[in-house]
Amino acid sequence: MDLQALLDEIAVAVAPLAARGKVADYIPALAGVAPGRFGMALVTVDGELFGSGELHAAFSLQSVCKAFTLALVLAADGDVLFERVGREPSGNPFNSLVQLEYEHGVPRNPFINAGALVTVDRLLSTTGDAFGALRAFLRAESGSTSIDLDPVVAASEAEHGHRNAALAHFMASYGNLENPVDVVLDHYFRQCAIAMSCAELARAGLFLARHGERADGTALFSRSLAKRLNAILLTCGTYDAAGDFAYRVGLPGKSGVGGGILTVLPGRGCLAVWGPALDKTGNSVAGVEALDLFTTRTGWSIF
Amino acid sequence: MDLQALLDEIAVAVAPLAARGKVADYIPALAGVAPGRFGMALVTVDGELFGSGELHAAFSLQSVCKAFTLALVLAADGDVLFERVGREPSGNPFNSLVQLEYEHGVPRNPFINAGALVTVDRLLSTTGDAFGALRAFLRAESGSTSIDLDPVVAASEAEHGHRNAALAHFMASYGNLENPVDVVLDHYFRQCAIAMSCAELARAGLFLARHGERADGTALFSRSLAKRLNAILLTCGTYDAAGDFAYRVGLPGKSGVGGGILTVLPGRGCLAVWGPALDKTGNSVAGVEALDLFTTRTGWSIF
Amino acid sequence: MDLQALLDEIAVAVAPLAARGKVADYIPALAGVAPGRFGMALVTVDGELFGSGELHAAFSLQSVCKAFTLALVLAADGDVLFERVGREPSGNPFNSLVQLEYEHGVPRNPFINAGALVTVDRLLSTTGDAFGALRAFLRAESGSTSIDLDPVVAASEAEHGHRNAALAHFMASYGNLENPVDVVLDHYFRQCAIAMSCAELARAGLFLARHGERADGTALFSRSLAKRLNAILLTCGTYDAAGDFAYRVGLPGKSGVGGGILTVLPGRGCLAVWGPALDKTGNSVAGVEALDLFTTRTGWSIF
Amino acid sequence: MDLQALLDEIAVAVAPLAARGKVADYIPALAGVAPGRFGMALVTVDGELFGSGELHAAFSLQSVCKAFTLALVLAADGDVLFERVGREPSGNPFNSLVQLEYEHGVPRNPFINAGALVTVDRLLSTTGDAFGALRAFLRAESGSTSIDLDPVVAASEAEHGHRNAALAHFMASYGNLENPVDVVLDHYFRQCAIAMSCAELARAGLFLARHGERADGTALFSRSLAKRLNAILLTCGTYDAAGDFAYRVGLPGKSGVGGGILTVLPGRGCLAVWGPALDKTGNSVAGVEALDLFTTRTGWSIF
Repeated sequence: MDLQALLDEIAVAVAPLAARGKVADYIPALAGVAPGRFGMALVTVDGELFGSGELHAAFSLQSVCKAFTLALVLAADGDVLFERVGREPSGNPFNSLVQLEYEHGVPRNPFINAGALVTVDRLLSTTGDAFGALRAFLRAESGSTSIDLDPVVAASEAEHGHRNAALAHFMASYGNLENPVDVVLDHYFRQCAIAMSCAELARAGLFLARHGERADGTALFSRSLAKRLNAILLTCGTYDAAGDFAYRVGLPGKSGVGGGILTVLPGRGCLAVWGPALDKTGNSVAGVEALDLFTTRTGWSIF
Repeated sequence: MDLQALLDEIAVAVAPLAARGKVADYIPALAGVAPGRFGMALVTVDGELFGSGELHAAFSLQSVCKAFTLALVLAADGDVLFERVGREPSGNPFNSLVQLEYEHGVPRNPFINAGALVTVDRLLSTTGDAFGALRAFLRAESGSTSIDLDPVVAASEAEHGHRNAALAHFMASYGNLENPVDVVLDHYFRQCAIAMSCAELARAGLFLARHGERADGTALFSRSLAKRLNAILLTCGTYDAAGDFAYRVGLPGKSGVGGGILTVLPGRGCLAVWGPALDKTGNSVAGVEALDLFTTRTGWSIF
Repeated sequence: MDLQALLDEIAVAVAPLAARGKVADYIPALAGVAPGRFGMALVTVDGELFGSGELHAAFSLQSVCKAFTLALVLAADGDVLFERVGREPSGNPFNSLVQLEYEHGVPRNPFINAGALVTVDRLLSTTGDAFGALRAFLRAESGSTSIDLDPVVAASEAEHGHRNAALAHFMASYGNLENPVDVVLDHYFRQCAIAMSCAELARAGLFLARHGERADGTALFSRSLAKRLNAILLTCGTYDAAGDFAYRVGLPGKSGVGGGILTVLPGRGCLAVWGPALDKTGNSVAGVEALDLFTTRTGWSIF
Repeated sequence: MDLQALLDEIAVAVAPLAARGKVADYIPALAGVAPGRFGMALVTVDGELFGSGELHAAFSLQSVCKAFTLALVLAADGDVLFERVGREPSGNPFNSLVQLEYEHGVPRNPFINAGALVTVDRLLSTTGDAFGALRAFLRAESGSTSIDLDPVVAASEAEHGHRNAALAHFMASYGNLENPVDVVLDHYFRQCAIAMSCAELARAGLFLARHGERADGTALFSRSLAKRLNAILLTCGTYDAAGDFAYRVGLPGKSGVGGGILTVLPGRGCLAVWGPALDKTGNSVAGVEALDLFTTRTGWSIF
């Protein structure tokens, strides 16, 4: 299969869609990105890169970073995290708070904001510097030592972070945070503000396609844990559209409101897409369409 | 791999668990099954059968039947059903009714009871006899022409069916049923009361592992639709434990409160297990454990 | 105070409002009423009648009947009903079903539909004919022997009653109905379809203003129970606007989507209003305004 | 009526109940109060005092203070506060957060914690010192110039205030706070920590029984607004037991988890009770019972 040709075709096919949807505007620092932009990068388990569009343009990771944070916590602790956070899809957004209340401060999964805060909290406890640990990992895996946060985005997140502060205090009221609320929030906001390109992101995620094997050949965690993390990505990785994403794309993946989506082709590689205009579930319109076309054409869904 | 030896080992390993959990007692006709029973059957895409325990004992399909009903509707209609029912995991049971209200009578997915009623309703419209169409399909695929409902179970379902009647009337109030409430309920109850063995069930499900190819070599639906149905099974097939099931087992599957679980190994075969004692999410304790052991030992999860 | 002059003034004042709002259209039989109509009747504890507008025009009682049904059950049973139904305001409509589920089939209060169904069910058990008992009581108290149901409305209710059927089956699934679902629904629909005028309604409610004393001088129930029923009317009688109604009007009352509202002036009399155009909480726009003006001018709120 | 004898009888009657229930323990500073204590004070509109038990013992006002804070905001602003907070009963506690989300950050009423935070926020805006304004008002109305906060309780509230912080941040995310979250919380915690006796509390509340007339003879607000505040107290003043409280007691009132309840007998006086052991709705067991006995014996409920 001529992967490069396929990616080029897909870029052409989704171009008319790229400006549909709505760029995230919950913080001013994100609202300024032009909606029509698009990039796509595939890195194989052997490290070969294919791409189309703006594959080297940096964008804000936002929730995509949660896949890596969770990986680092699982690597450090095994699955004891799941005593403090579930691994079930979240149902719909409307219920997030009532579920948190009903389930006594235990978030449904590590990717909804409440669960991500618990995961950051745990990474803080195990490393002392959750943001630093994540940045170091992303640099090491992608081979791009300049990866860093966008300070404007980070400041904007902190300034408009009342809702995450509400979640953090709410979990603290149930005793489900180990570190002070403001410290957890600070690391969380900085993690989300990390900027990377599709090419960097796909490369950084390869350990998920290589059953836990890192760029340096060491094992981040067991083959079994790698599979299990992929299962969480599939069932919980795309907000409240996980069912639709599995149906259309059929790959484990993690999306962010910056418009990026990282997907895993177990044993083959990672495919990252970016298109800042979002559908109403918070996923990139052009990105999901590109992934749908990719798995339809290649047959490489996991199902 | 010596599959027969593996299944035998697994049967031994889960035997101590088989009596844990609680046999479904919402209808008297199910409550009498001995909790310690266990069966397991693997049928490969080539039709070869491996099994352990009571692989030929018939049990009540209950919700397992919903995988087949959905397949028949998708085969008849393509995916227009999804205008009337979603394909997102349901979150938790507590929310089922409020979600139905919040989402104006459109159930979250075809496997929660409300969604299954809509699916049966559609099969009624397309065939005139939803129960008959399902029974005929199961007989044809399994090669067992004696497969039928258990009349005691069917009567018991109807007698204790107030909750499903509530769901059906609720959807009817939103105009989301095409046929009369009592007719839909009757076919639904009879479908759930069909009895099959693990061996029959695994064989009947092979079209899911063969990308839509039926026992007679014809295509039930496209390769793409087969993958998509597997995606729904993975994200929605095990009640509110889909995330946990994906994490532990990593296979598309459909469970029922009769204690059966049908799982799909795409391109390889189907694995059906049965153990009537259920965990609090309504899934077979021994069954899930057996499947977890199987994919851990074989590495054949989809992730 | 010249009560007749006051009622005339109020009728003039609310006339411009009478057509605002929206006539109930959930059943065709109600949708045809002209929105601009208005009537008001005050009957003192001594039986004197004052009125303005169409005080003798009959309208569909709808939920107003629930005040009387509850009174009859309390008279028969004392307050044992409250083992099967609460007496707390319902919060908002969105939650009605989830509350019913969360509280295991025990409705919040006797005036939300679920609670009214339980109350009718109990009246059925104590009298054998819930509809007949209510009609006889209304005739006796009002002195109007021709009061009866509107058969067109009753048939329309039954035909469009899926939502109430859902509630009834749901409670039956929790064992909270003593009689068959269809029998309870039939009596419920017929009770709601009773037609009365403001003058008849105000007179029929006098036992509430006379601390339980009926038209024939006998006691329906104790002074204490009369006060308690008034408390339920105040906190639960106007759908999800009970707080607003208490704030603006300050009287115990029961409204219906036919546009009628019965209010109680303890020790003084009953005031009934009718205006078919409803606000978004299901209460008569002109009716609430007229009651607000009345208590503001007379100072006769209970507070 | 010999009110003093009646209060003495009631104190004897409820003594066996006083230790039932559970002293509030959400903050350590409250958990140490002996459960068996009890006090009751009635002050007539003419200023005459009757009492029994520990009528002069100071206890922590907690939510009782919210009645006064609301009065001060209504006095300053009229009812514009109700653009930012509703006046409907809250339904059940489970729903508080989901309602806040569903209603876009507008709390149901001024007495649930979220609504009280908005009310304190508004008093901060109108006075510059919400705590100081409340303390000055309580001192002036009660004539007890030593009334103040308990610093241990205030510190304990602040230390364990994660849940209120969550609510405040959540409302801030909807733009429904005018002042910084931490400032609002500080004044809120200090207001709740004010300590007063039943005798002081009943006297301080007299403006509610005197239609707005303060201790110095001036009007805090109009007669109409006084009635309307009483309506809110009746429908929303006792947490999620407002319906039950109206049914049993039949008086406007405000309770607190310190065990105090202030009730209003419009035109007659105020009755305050205190018993630290609470029922599961957060209301004083002995207090509610004493009030029930009082209105049953005197017939002085408002209904």
